[in-house]
Amino acid sequence: MASIQLYDTTLRDGAQREGVSFSTVDKLDIARKLDEIGIHFIEGGWPGSNPKDVEFFKKAQSLALHHSSLVAFGSTRRPISKAQTDANLQALANAGVKAVTIVGKSSDLQVTQVLETSLEENLSMIADSIRYLKAKGLTVFFDAEHFFDGFKANPGYALRVLEVAAEAGADCLVPCDTNGGTLPNEITVAIEAARKLTTTPLGIHAHNDAELGVANTLAAVNAGASQVQGTINGYGERCGNANLCSIIPALKLKMGIDCVTNEQLAKLTEVSRFVSEVANLPPDPFSPYIGSSAFSHKAGLHVAGMTKWSGSYQHIDPTHVGNQPRVLVSELSGKSNIIYKARERGIDLPLQGKEAEKLLEQVKLLESRGFQYENAEASFELLLHRAKPDYQPLFTLVDFMVVVESRRRPPTRRSPEEALSEAIIKVKVGTEIIHTAAEGNGPVNALDDALRKALLQFYPSLAQVKLVDYKVRILEESVGTGSQVRVLIESSDGVEEWRTVGSSTNIIEASWLALADSLEYWLIKQKAAAS
Amino acid sequence: MASIQLYDTTLRDGAQREGVSFSTVDKLDIARKLDEIGIHFIEGGWPGSNPKDVEFFKKAQSLALHHSSLVAFGSTRRPISKAQTDANLQALANAGVKAVTIVGKSSDLQVTQVLETSLEENLSMIADSIRYLKAKGLTVFFDAEHFFDGFKANPGYALRVLEVAAEAGADCLVPCDTNGGTLPNEITVAIEAARKLTTTPLGIHAHNDAELGVANTLAAVNAGASQVQGTINGYGERCGNANLCSIIPALKLKMGIDCVTNEQLAKLTEVSRFVSEVANLPPDPFSPYIGSSAFSHKAGLHVAGMTKWSGSYQHIDPTHVGNQPRVLVSELSGKSNIIYKARERGIDLPLQGKEAEKLLEQVKLLESRGFQYENAEASFELLLHRAKPDYQPLFTLVDFMVVVESRRRPPTRRSPEEALSEAIIKVKVGTEIIHTAAEGNGPVNALDDALRKALLQFYPSLAQVKLVDYKVRILEESVGTGSQVRVLIESSDGVEEWRTVGSSTNIIEASWLALADSLEYWLIKQKAAAS
Repeated sequence: MASIQLYDTTLRDGAQREGVSFSTVDKLDIARKLDEIGIHFIEGGWPGSNPKDVEFFKKAQSLALHHSSLVAFGSTRRPISKAQTDANLQALANAGVKAVTIVGKSSDLQVTQVLETSLEENLSMIADSIRYLKAKGLTVFFDAEHFFDGFKANPGYALRVLEVAAEAGADCLVPCDTNGGTLPNEITVAIEAARKLTTTPLGIHAHNDAELGVANTLAAVNAGASQVQGTINGYGERCGNANLCSIIPALKLKMGIDCVTNEQLAKLTEVSRFVSEVANLPPDPFSPYIGSSAFSHKAGLHVAGMTKWSGSYQHIDPTHVGNQPRVLVSELSGKSNIIYKARERGIDLPLQGKEAEKLLEQVKLLESRGFQYENAEASFELLLHRAKPDYQPLFTLVDFMVVVESRRRPPTRRSPEEALSEAIIKVKVGTEIIHTAAEGNGPVNALDDALRKALLQFYPSLAQVKLVDYKVRILEESVGTGSQVRVLIESSDGVEEWRTVGSSTNIIEASWLALADSLEYWLIKQKAAAS
Repeated sequence: MASIQLYDTTLRDGAQREGVSFSTVDKLDIARKLDEIGIHFIEGGWPGSNPKDVEFFKKAQSLALHHSSLVAFGSTRRPISKAQTDANLQALANAGVKAVTIVGKSSDLQVTQVLETSLEENLSMIADSIRYLKAKGLTVFFDAEHFFDGFKANPGYALRVLEVAAEAGADCLVPCDTNGGTLPNEITVAIEAARKLTTTPLGIHAHNDAELGVANTLAAVNAGASQVQGTINGYGERCGNANLCSIIPALKLKMGIDCVTNEQLAKLTEVSRFVSEVANLPPDPFSPYIGSSAFSHKAGLHVAGMTKWSGSYQHIDPTHVGNQPRVLVSELSGKSNIIYKARERGIDLPLQGKEAEKLLEQVKLLESRGFQYENAEASFELLLHRAKPDYQPLFTLVDFMVVVESRRRPPTRRSPEEALSEAIIKVKVGTEIIHTAAEGNGPVNALDDALRKALLQFYPSLAQVKLVDYKVRILEESVGTGSQVRVLIESSDGVEEWRTVGSSTNIIEASWLALADSLEYWLIKQKAAAS
């Protein structure tokens, strides 16, 4: 149990989650992050089924990974065919990786009912495919699909599948709980049976359909499995895969298995949020270990207990996984917090005495109005800039007007159902006032276009700045059409990305504030770099 | 193991979740729903610490519960005091319930460091309090706080606490994993130790801080615990409590424990969504068993497998928990689907031949534009109405214009940062055209006010209709400020609630469509009721 291999399948199985679609660049970025936290194997995709994945493996050649090995995934050869001529196996052999995982069926019903072939042929498919890939000099992992359901219905056949794969030379046998419905005690029994059968290392690939993905993985490790497959944030089809963000700290902190270093574990929260950002999914605040609420406390008994003994209401020290305890922002915020954040961002501010206090008051006021700086570091940095005595805005928003109109007559080139959005803005740059207007695909889009139009003549380099994400959240505490909304905007100049925030009961105004921050932030950085 | 008591603490521990705040009416509504699915005990609140909870227990007297008993929660007497004069214990005794749960500490460190009293005094506090409540004729459950952490550090003291509670007459001893960090095998060892100690029934109260809340609960049941405490949707402080929506189906469908009837289990999905609705939290689509994606399948191998054998990629039949499989709306939608939905809503439509096909085409077109009718049954019903040959709209939106303006000059009564929102609309009722305008707290609020203003003169009863929720979702597939947005509006007339949907790249237009649907739906229903 001393040595555990962490095997991440966020890029393949994780991408099966509803709403997730990773580009090749996204996948390369995530692979780099997984390497940083010491994941041993990164399953990059299925080159035999997906042309995008072929491209990924090609580009991944230039990834300078320090800890991780890339793995290509595919299935065994098709029934009644030859491994030597199987396009899928050839794609695996040509993926440019040292390790591959192939999936084969280990449930008799799945073989006869879904694959529609004989039990013997299925065994040959597995053995042939593994031998073919081993002959190419590859490390071969075998994913035994539906193993636990198969083991329940026909244990002899399920175990025979593992035996055949081991005899063919597989380097690790990975029983899969494909449908995710197995209970931990059933996992224990099946893994122990497999353990008795062969000396080939065993793995575990669990899903979360019964909310037991983590527990089933830990049960398999206790029963002798040494390769742990899962995904960051538990992303995956249906209810997701086993969540590595909960498994890694359990192994390291609770079971004493040294699978990553302390420094790697301390990056877990960052990596979790990075992956959710790339997947364009809001991070789940209630996620164990890495969620922003995982160590938060509502006022009352627990908070009082925490002040007496920090371990009284938390199961681990949150800094071990790069997270932090949270009571309430307003209760935690202090002058030292602001000073710390300013230093972190390399900003030299005279933060003694009144100035720091004034800034703190402002942060508190803005946070009470729905601004949130945790995920909008660019807006936070602008607050610090604006607190400097010599701060000169690069542009000032004088005023704006947005008109959204839906008129049946007179007929226009638009379809009658489509509304027209128009923004008229006034911006001051230096002593000059620019008064301009733009149409857009919705009111915020119109504002965005008008603001760029006004500023481009002064700052032509702004053309590089693109909006990459625009998110609206209705703040939970408010209801109805008068709700407070928070707009988060992510921008990019092709090299760096930054996030800004706006908040108002008026969605247009909230968007306007975040848009303006986004452009000003970039202009200030450009100016600093040039000087 | 044959008899398990389900104990729900959604109304107390569940309400500790960040962002959740239940009104007394909310709590009464939820209690009725919990009764419907056969929960044995409903913990209603803490009358000794919260005046709102006193009101709840008062009003709960008139709840005609068929299956559930209400339980009041509180702590033991304070150190160095008398049970007879303890305000908290008196509040429990006077709550008007037959069963109470009291919480006491079972970790030696918690007693000395947090409670700051002696280990002996803690035992007396527990014994005195249980005896006092038993003497009042109450059923008394004892929650042993921090039991598992206490058992690890000082097993003798943790077990002594249970023993003392049993001797004092507790009807059930409930070891709590208060910090949620215990592993399943540790739960098994501790519950087995407790099981050897006493014949008093044992329970389990688990939290989800290590993503093991469900597994720990099932491990405790396997080790002999018979009372299972948890919450609907796993709501609770930090990462939540053990999730009854995953525990109940595991007990019933996978472990053969007949804790609820088949009919009660089939209401689980409905109750889960009801509670999230009341809590004003979006339902988590990826939740095991009851999530809308729990049995969904992306196209490919799995969908092909499902067509051959429905069990091939799902661990249970989703109808057992009131859920349903889902491939993709567009792939599933068929004429029969529309006919089924129309009948379900009691609408008599000539759905043969071309008309049904036309309607189906329209639904598909609207869904491709971002409308979603699953949670907007009122908008769906309007589509059916509008397909009738004799459909006469009660009002028609002729056109609208919304202006959002933020001007520094001239100064107005508003603060200079605040934007003005104004809506100008034209609505046709019969042959009359009403042209009116209103200001609002944001553009959607202004539209809402203007529309009501225009219609009230014709339909004064509309004054009863209130907007109770307004939600905006940026559709995941689109990005940037040109994103497609979906607006969901929930309205109420004080008796019934209904939901409508609007979608557009323009948030104002999406809101306008949903608002208009909301009012028209209600007017049609009123007219039908009157005729």
